[in-house]
Amino acid sequence: MTPEKTISGFSKLRKRDKIKWIAKNFFTDPEHVMNELISYWHGDAAQQKILDGFSENTISNFPMPYGVAPNFLIDGKTYVVPMVIEESSVVAAASAAAKFWMSRGGFKTEILDTQKVGQVHFKWSGNPEKLKGIFPQIKELLILESKDITVNMEQRGGGILDIELLDFNEEEKGLYQIRAYFDTCDSMGANFVNSCLESFGATLRNYVIKSDKLAEDEKDVLIVMSILSNYTPDCLVRASVSCKVDELGDFAGGLNSETFAEKFVTAVKIAHIDPYRATTHNKGIYNGVDAVALATGNDFRAIESCGHTYASRDGKYRSLSYAQVENGIFKFWIDLPLAIGTVGGLTTLHPIAKRSIELLGNPDAKELMSIIASTGLAQNFAAIRSLVTTGIQKGHMKMHLQNILNQMKATEEESSKALKYFDDRVVSFAGVRNFLDSIR
Amino acid sequence: MTPEKTISGFSKLRKRDKIKWIAKNFFTDPEHVMNELISYWHGDAAQQKILDGFSENTISNFPMPYGVAPNFLIDGKTYVVPMVIEESSVVAAASAAAKFWMSRGGFKTEILDTQKVGQVHFKWSGNPEKLKGIFPQIKELLILESKDITVNMEQRGGGILDIELLDFNEEEKGLYQIRAYFDTCDSMGANFVNSCLESFGATLRNYVIKSDKLAEDEKDVLIVMSILSNYTPDCLVRASVSCKVDELGDFAGGLNSETFAEKFVTAVKIAHIDPYRATTHNKGIYNGVDAVALATGNDFRAIESCGHTYASRDGKYRSLSYAQVENGIFKFWIDLPLAIGTVGGLTTLHPIAKRSIELLGNPDAKELMSIIASTGLAQNFAAIRSLVTTGIQKGHMKMHLQNILNQMKATEEESSKALKYFDDRVVSFAGVRNFLDSIR
Repeated sequence: MTPEKTISGFSKLRKRDKIKWIAKNFFTDPEHVMNELISYWHGDAAQQKILDGFSENTISNFPMPYGVAPNFLIDGKTYVVPMVIEESSVVAAASAAAKFWMSRGGFKTEILDTQKVGQVHFKWSGNPEKLKGIFPQIKELLILESKDITVNMEQRGGGILDIELLDFNEEEKGLYQIRAYFDTCDSMGANFVNSCLESFGATLRNYVIKSDKLAEDEKDVLIVMSILSNYTPDCLVRASVSCKVDELGDFAGGLNSETFAEKFVTAVKIAHIDPYRATTHNKGIYNGVDAVALATGNDFRAIESCGHTYASRDGKYRSLSYAQVENGIFKFWIDLPLAIGTVGGLTTLHPIAKRSIELLGNPDAKELMSIIASTGLAQNFAAIRSLVTTGIQKGHMKMHLQNILNQMKATEEESSKALKYFDDRVVSFAGVRNFLDSIR
Repeated sequence: MTPEKTISGFSKLRKRDKIKWIAKNFFTDPEHVMNELISYWHGDAAQQKILDGFSENTISNFPMPYGVAPNFLIDGKTYVVPMVIEESSVVAAASAAAKFWMSRGGFKTEILDTQKVGQVHFKWSGNPEKLKGIFPQIKELLILESKDITVNMEQRGGGILDIELLDFNEEEKGLYQIRAYFDTCDSMGANFVNSCLESFGATLRNYVIKSDKLAEDEKDVLIVMSILSNYTPDCLVRASVSCKVDELGDFAGGLNSETFAEKFVTAVKIAHIDPYRATTHNKGIYNGVDAVALATGNDFRAIESCGHTYASRDGKYRSLSYAQVENGIFKFWIDLPLAIGTVGGLTTLHPIAKRSIELLGNPDAKELMSIIASTGLAQNFAAIRSLVTTGIQKGHMKMHLQNILNQMKATEEESSKALKYFDDRVVSFAGVRNFLDSIR
């Protein structure tokens, strides 16, 4: 029988039938695949139902390693930071950097601002100046008619901060943007912001149709779309570490603290000069940032998009972190835009994300911004430290080798032989298999 | 007893002792937390050991929903695309877009190039022209002395493509970069590239010390760092969809295909004009891209960094996708830099990632680039379609409501009452709890 590769009504199948259809039509050992996928379900059906509800067409759980980096001293408080990451060395690096800075004053942070942003784009063909003239009136109405949405947020201390009209006629004839700024307190705020914006769109449309200030030929308004912006340059946290250069200590290969500091500052400078380097430099920062975001149920795609746009804000893609030596003091810091939440969304729904928030001592959104930025900075510190001292390959390959050995079910004795054999050789999957075959 | 918040030797504790220490010192109900974390371990100890080995200080698994989007027709072949994502609507949107385009010719893709990039940065204080003059000789040596690393990759058809010397004296006195280009076949290639680069660094240092072409005061070279660049603008795939405008069909709210196409093209244009919009637009693309990356064991931080740098390459952060209507034909496409692998790394090690690769018919790296780019484009299509027609909030809030109801263990009857009640109300955690309390 030819396997069926397309299907109608898949989403309506029960979970077991979804798996069955996939296993039968796409795998050579359907039975085994079914059992394997089911083996990753949580033992408690109610728990599993919660997990399945987060997405659609779910057939199993994809397990990500849940690790922790202890000894993070941030603004005088000590944390064990939960990290969800599938890449080796990241948690070890964060832990090492945290411990290093714990005895040097720890991480200091500052919340620079917490504004969220939303946009309604629309097309309108009348006189731009006329629209700008009546906009204050429209603005009042936008605020008034979204009251049923904003009332709860206002009780929590948030709400709409400001609304402005932007004229994009130069780029596209008749195009305007309503840009609105929000305080969403301890929630990331996507649902709140989007609900407000859709209300703004409806209000605007009604106003234009009904207003006696507009002529007949000015009553056509096309709402293109109403949605939050993930670019929040004014939802910003600064995290920093600093110490005397001679407190940096001695490093591998006989590197003294002065040379280390100099190489470190140069490495960060290169990431400001060259976008090719900046990309990888910032990638390392997001190894730490995303791991905590995932662990606390925050949306890492939103965080990444925002941060990288911010990194390119002056027209060239650059490092998000900065380093300097001045008057014998080494200083390393980061400015990171971070729109995250500690209530609402997955944060409150995912069983392990809830535990992460508890592990961190139930921080509010600002405190979590500080924790995440510090973890990103720790990650970046550890990565640059490795790069300018021993290089990253040796440690990395050793861990990769251990993963391959686990996978091939190597015994302790085989593993120790392999570790010795590959000490000065390039590790590859095939290479390890050949080696194990040769000694088995 | 005061809880202990810091610890020495944590990484050396057994997994159970790690959990015990955390539970005792950071949670109010240690027993319960221990049991909950352990309940997420895989039943098979050998499987769990493999998962634990991917990272450090692992204490449990963080379950991410593993879903599938069927009916993806890409270059004439049909796929069920595995997606790992914790955000609701993403898999449903990808599936809907896939089905929509299946009957309109599907996705067409083209691999534009597959070059990977690596860099060795060094400082040297001699005459730049002299260095440029001897570089061809150095280059030969770099290639020769890395042969033991490259020999296997060359057998598979890859290896070093080119090596060039860049002069950064203008930005930082004495700073140079060796930029190397690689073909890493079906692996993402990070380990291979980094091993080559560390070899280049060693070769360069030796050459400078020993060369009789350099005077005594030209023999100081400082290797700052040797590491791959995640910015790979020439590892690029293009994916596109197109059909006659009148084949687009009718949309919600009585929108006809012409108006839909026009609004769609405007929405994409806005994401080229305004970085605030571009950020969210591209974020939607990465909802799809990252979900497949995660499912196949690829590193989404590397993919994100690369893509966003690419989005800012002309000095302004812009949309990665493009749309046009020409001669009655609607066309929508994306150019996406994607350095991914189907062998090596986690792809071959993670039990579910391996199944994802199998589900996709064991694609090579190029085919996986096509699949990922198509999924990103599908995601973007679905998001814009929602935005310019019904808006995204209605569907989104309905799913969010269902998640909250699952969490609060609502019965079928309670759920159906809640769905009715919240049909025209704003959904919030507290609101749902109040409602359930009122009917319970």
